[in-house]
Amino acid sequence: MDAARKWVEAHRQKHQDDYFEFLRFRSISTDPAYKSEIDACARWVQKYLADSGLHTELLSTPVHPVVYAESRPHIPGKPTVLIYGHYDVQPVDPLELWESPPFDATVRDGEIYARGSADDKGQVFMHFKAIEAHLKQNGRLPCNIKVILEGEEEVGSANLDNFVKDHKDKLSADVVVISDSPMFDRGIPSICYGLRGLVYVQIDLRGTKSDLHSGSFGGAVANPAFQLATILAQMKDKSGRIKIPGFYDDVRQLREEEREQWKRLPFNEKRYAKELGAPKLWGETGYSTLERVWARPTFEVNGILSGFTGEGAKTVIPAVAMAKVSMRLVPNQDPDKIAKLFEDHVHKVAPKSVEVKVTRMHGGKPWMTDFDNKYVQAAGRAIQKGFGKEPVFNREGGSIPVVATFSEILGLPSVLFGVGLPDENAHAPNEKLDLGNFHGGIIASAYLYDEIAKG
Amino acid sequence: MDAARKWVEAHRQKHQDDYFEFLRFRSISTDPAYKSEIDACARWVQKYLADSGLHTELLSTPVHPVVYAESRPHIPGKPTVLIYGHYDVQPVDPLELWESPPFDATVRDGEIYARGSADDKGQVFMHFKAIEAHLKQNGRLPCNIKVILEGEEEVGSANLDNFVKDHKDKLSADVVVISDSPMFDRGIPSICYGLRGLVYVQIDLRGTKSDLHSGSFGGAVANPAFQLATILAQMKDKSGRIKIPGFYDDVRQLREEEREQWKRLPFNEKRYAKELGAPKLWGETGYSTLERVWARPTFEVNGILSGFTGEGAKTVIPAVAMAKVSMRLVPNQDPDKIAKLFEDHVHKVAPKSVEVKVTRMHGGKPWMTDFDNKYVQAAGRAIQKGFGKEPVFNREGGSIPVVATFSEILGLPSVLFGVGLPDENAHAPNEKLDLGNFHGGIIASAYLYDEIAKG
Repeated sequence: MDAARKWVEAHRQKHQDDYFEFLRFRSISTDPAYKSEIDACARWVQKYLADSGLHTELLSTPVHPVVYAESRPHIPGKPTVLIYGHYDVQPVDPLELWESPPFDATVRDGEIYARGSADDKGQVFMHFKAIEAHLKQNGRLPCNIKVILEGEEEVGSANLDNFVKDHKDKLSADVVVISDSPMFDRGIPSICYGLRGLVYVQIDLRGTKSDLHSGSFGGAVANPAFQLATILAQMKDKSGRIKIPGFYDDVRQLREEEREQWKRLPFNEKRYAKELGAPKLWGETGYSTLERVWARPTFEVNGILSGFTGEGAKTVIPAVAMAKVSMRLVPNQDPDKIAKLFEDHVHKVAPKSVEVKVTRMHGGKPWMTDFDNKYVQAAGRAIQKGFGKEPVFNREGGSIPVVATFSEILGLPSVLFGVGLPDENAHAPNEKLDLGNFHGGIIASAYLYDEIAKG
Repeated sequence: MDAARKWVEAHRQKHQDDYFEFLRFRSISTDPAYKSEIDACARWVQKYLADSGLHTELLSTPVHPVVYAESRPHIPGKPTVLIYGHYDVQPVDPLELWESPPFDATVRDGEIYARGSADDKGQVFMHFKAIEAHLKQNGRLPCNIKVILEGEEEVGSANLDNFVKDHKDKLSADVVVISDSPMFDRGIPSICYGLRGLVYVQIDLRGTKSDLHSGSFGGAVANPAFQLATILAQMKDKSGRIKIPGFYDDVRQLREEEREQWKRLPFNEKRYAKELGAPKLWGETGYSTLERVWARPTFEVNGILSGFTGEGAKTVIPAVAMAKVSMRLVPNQDPDKIAKLFEDHVHKVAPKSVEVKVTRMHGGKPWMTDFDNKYVQAAGRAIQKGFGKEPVFNREGGSIPVVATFSEILGLPSVLFGVGLPDENAHAPNEKLDLGNFHGGIIASAYLYDEIAKG
């Protein structure tokens, strides 16, 4: 491995140049006008991996192609790592807010500015270079490697589930490595081992067949906007605890080791509140902010609408009221079960004076690997070698749907091995990747295959 | 008075013809295109009253003129009745829904169909004919009469307050008669002696400086849409009782006589709920529906808006949430005092995790004359003579702002002497006035002056 490391360090400029070539493709997946750029980008990726020494294929889907690659020959007795990433990028508008052209990568103050620099071309390309390092210096990889790069991540990965189902054998592996997320903070490498799930529902109330004059009818009938407020208010108490019966039954409690680790993280509540513009942070009593975001379920009102909402005053009793509501779930909560508990509770607390309809919009399971899982620990050792600093083992509050795809269809654990930063401007103008993180990420990735190979 | 009655009954066709001429003016006050029709209508009204034998004046305001008339000479020792009404009408669109031309009055099934037939030309014109009856048959009126007809009622009477202030002496009287409202129901003449007031406010909450991703931040901060729901939910309990401390302090309790009278009214709760399309009527425990609408204050959410309200799902924690809220008030609640109590309560129950702003939009005082007041009773006897049926003494849930104008500026009691019907389609296509109510209204109005003259 030391040879690989030396090779990586000796060719920094070359790595950067190759990476910048990758960044030049306008591989915007949402806009059909860029279809030829998407295809050209996929072919470039395929050629790059083939030139490195992998067996490659360009596999079609109903929209954009998937680049597949694998190391040959198969090394018996060694685990197989499936590296997932995407070569498509977000649109760039508003273009006028970019300080340098989005497809002409520019280095300023130690950051690489370009669309896709962090999300996800940079994080994909560090694996390409790590693979190249092993093959160039050692003539072989320490474990078996498969690569799957899709071109539809930024448009919801609509074809990925079917693709994975159709290529189960080809994608068989021991562990998935996903490099498409930020670290905890600048200078604090981290390995994420848990994500929250989601249940999203809409509640519709109807009081009367049409809006009524609040003078002539006020006092006669229930007001659906008020009744909706009372229903929502009964979902969470003043301590932030969700009141839906059975809601917490399957919640895996935080381990003491997790709480201890997270307590040591440099997290400044005051600065965080100030950055968000919040008068005060708020949430479930008995848990720190990080614990609440990473490891506790939530109940949020995402939207609410009823009656007259324009300028001025209109004395109306609304006929209908609507709220969009979602719950973030943690292991081992099940979206279907929680959706049912929620719906039952709504119907239980709703008054008979209004019609109530609950519509389930979508959901996703929470995901978690224990942080002492061998692959998570391997990733931790690798990132420590790449960045020279002990990593944090954290969880994330959001969801990465592809994790569920690999878990549910292939039965594989995932390791989230990301080197982006929280301020990377993914999906926004002036997307950037820290230059040091790019080079550190190559070395860390090269070590990752070694560490996983150790079993 | 019998001579006047006979004269009225002998010239039914003539009254109708004259009334139809009045209905022909397109006196739509909101549309400047009809300014000449407004002015022509005002002049026609002035001439009509002058021809009847009143002294008349056309008085200008910043927008549409006021027609003023008074009986001369002044009869000493007799009370003065100030009759208020308006000659302007609502627009007629959607025109295609009218079954006959809105300005070409048509009789169908005993109803006069035309814009303004009920609101308010028909109810104004019955007074013109009643005045004419007395003057033609008796050569004099039983009491002093003043008439003030404005041309801006349908655009909010913006100039009326100043007009009344500027003409305090001219408008001095003992009682105001307002004929601009419906009866309780077909065949049930009624005298309304109470109206509710209003306080209208907007509540704005801010949680953070911008919308946040509910995955990355859910659990860290308060959700203003949820917090708004909890604030609103704390305004009224499950029995429909408003929980704002001090809210009921000044509420005049219903008199036993009122409750007894109203209990006898033909009011079918099931039919009423069905007509409104409500699964169930709902309101404050311990009061009937009519009591709740007429004589109890309310708390209503008129509108609410926060976050994502389009199709589908967006996992956002809204930055802001807004509700429009109003309270109908009953005697002797004061809008300023109630607005203050509400605001204090909001700030008391609101969490510190959100910024809360309460903005007062507008308000109006409740109004009430005791139903055994001599003018109210005089109106009751008059309407009984006109319609041959004992009237109901009721209140109304809405407001008639002009009542406050006369009470506050001139210190005068008002008698609401309306002969419209609840299904009259005021402000809608196919506005109508019952032909029998028109003729009965003339006779009742003629008796009204007699009854008021008795003191």
